[in-house]
Amino acid sequence: MKGVRTFDVERNGERRDDHVIVEEPLRIRIAGETLAVTMRTPGHDRELVLGFLLSEGVIAGAGDVSTMSPCAKEENTMDVVLSPGVKLPVDPDTGMLAKRGTLTSSACGVCGRVAIDDLIARAEPLAPGGPTVRREVVTDGMRALRDRQPLFRETGGCHAASLVTFAGEHVATFEDVGRHNAVDKVIGHCVRKGRLPLDAHVLLVSGRSSFEIVQKAVMARIPVVAAVSASTSLAVDLARRANVTLAGFVREGSLTVYAGTALAG
Amino acid sequence: MKGVRTFDVERNGERRDDHVIVEEPLRIRIAGETLAVTMRTPGHDRELVLGFLLSEGVIAGAGDVSTMSPCAKEENTMDVVLSPGVKLPVDPDTGMLAKRGTLTSSACGVCGRVAIDDLIARAEPLAPGGPTVRREVVTDGMRALRDRQPLFRETGGCHAASLVTFAGEHVATFEDVGRHNAVDKVIGHCVRKGRLPLDAHVLLVSGRSSFEIVQKAVMARIPVVAAVSASTSLAVDLARRANVTLAGFVREGSLTVYAGTALAG
Repeated sequence: MKGVRTFDVERNGERRDDHVIVEEPLRIRIAGETLAVTMRTPGHDRELVLGFLLSEGVIAGAGDVSTMSPCAKEENTMDVVLSPGVKLPVDPDTGMLAKRGTLTSSACGVCGRVAIDDLIARAEPLAPGGPTVRREVVTDGMRALRDRQPLFRETGGCHAASLVTFAGEHVATFEDVGRHNAVDKVIGHCVRKGRLPLDAHVLLVSGRSSFEIVQKAVMARIPVVAAVSASTSLAVDLARRANVTLAGFVREGSLTVYAGTALAG
Repeated sequence: MKGVRTFDVERNGERRDDHVIVEEPLRIRIAGETLAVTMRTPGHDRELVLGFLLSEGVIAGAGDVSTMSPCAKEENTMDVVLSPGVKLPVDPDTGMLAKRGTLTSSACGVCGRVAIDDLIARAEPLAPGGPTVRREVVTDGMRALRDRQPLFRETGGCHAASLVTFAGEHVATFEDVGRHNAVDKVIGHCVRKGRLPLDAHVLLVSGRSSFEIVQKAVMARIPVVAAVSASTSLAVDLARRANVTLAGFVREGSLTVYAGTALAG
């Protein structure tokens, strides 16, 4: 199975074969310059890169990418050429993405407020008072997510993210050793299919909701984020500011609503 | 409680107060230059910074740091001055730590092998055939770790890392919203106390073992890493190469040994 490697291990005194989730770096390179290296599970690298570039504000859709291909000479490297007129927001001093440059060089210091202000400056809040979704779509979607994790069943060592419509239709599920990567793959899949903006969709994640998970939802215009586990303070702050409905501890038909009004019933 | 914020949430149709783990950025700045920004739970920032700097190969011990203090003008910023003669391994092209520069600019591409080669070039493997530790120290230590997580009890939203000696003596436990940060705080605590190298110690972590967790153990010379959950392929590869004993799924007295020979009994 792709994404799984077999190792000879010892369990309770006995040798046996064990299936382990694959972790390998992926370098994302634009016009020859390395933007980022992420530790990911190989597979669906194009989706991962598109989702990452959208989350970071580099692209607004698939039309902003001219070509994307794995480097023929170098392993684990994806070469991206942006479409004419699409500018890379790079800080000339640091060579880092401008968003990160802003976060790290702001004169008033770094804090959660600055990170949120910066994100809102690039992507405005979602429209308040939009359509609502039945809670069962969230709780049923989370149950279904558990059945869509073949890599987790084999290894116990990866995360998953899923996207469903407000009507409960399943759009996509991806697994990855990194939870941010799983979300990037889901969003990148939708970028490839030209499905953005993702209004009236729910993003389901197998772990916790941190600032970065909600950031990715804001950039893809996903109005509802639901997680199996807890939210962080900065995730709640951002969700409230950006009108994202944020649910956590979605287990056995129950859930906690940290932010937003999109859950009905 | 520090590290926890209270939010008004809705749970199963009822409003109530909920305790959420605090996530805030911390900027690590050396001689005025930003080295990294990490999302962390405030508290024990000095330990976090010392552990991070040791893990990244910037310092070898507390003596390599001349001064360290929170910036008086800017929030969430720790200013570090290295001791005379201690050089910052920065790539002049990217402004990033040389280790990351190596990982991302190697002519033969990025891959797990390169990441491991690079780490081994900076920190040699631990000595093979060292002392052994009874398995009960690992399984009992993991049970004790669960009782040393007050932030997790309040929020359900953070990780923890713990260090115990081969004799089973508890050295330190820290919690953080980021699992790498929890490990950095444990190692940084030992850097402050002048306890390095940490031979004949076990590092216990509440989540999974990834490449970076084993990397931190190698840099601090910790011979045994044990995790509640799975290991990744690259963590196993690195542990085998560096002679670190790596255990996973440490639950209810059982465990899986992915690498190494330091577990007796």
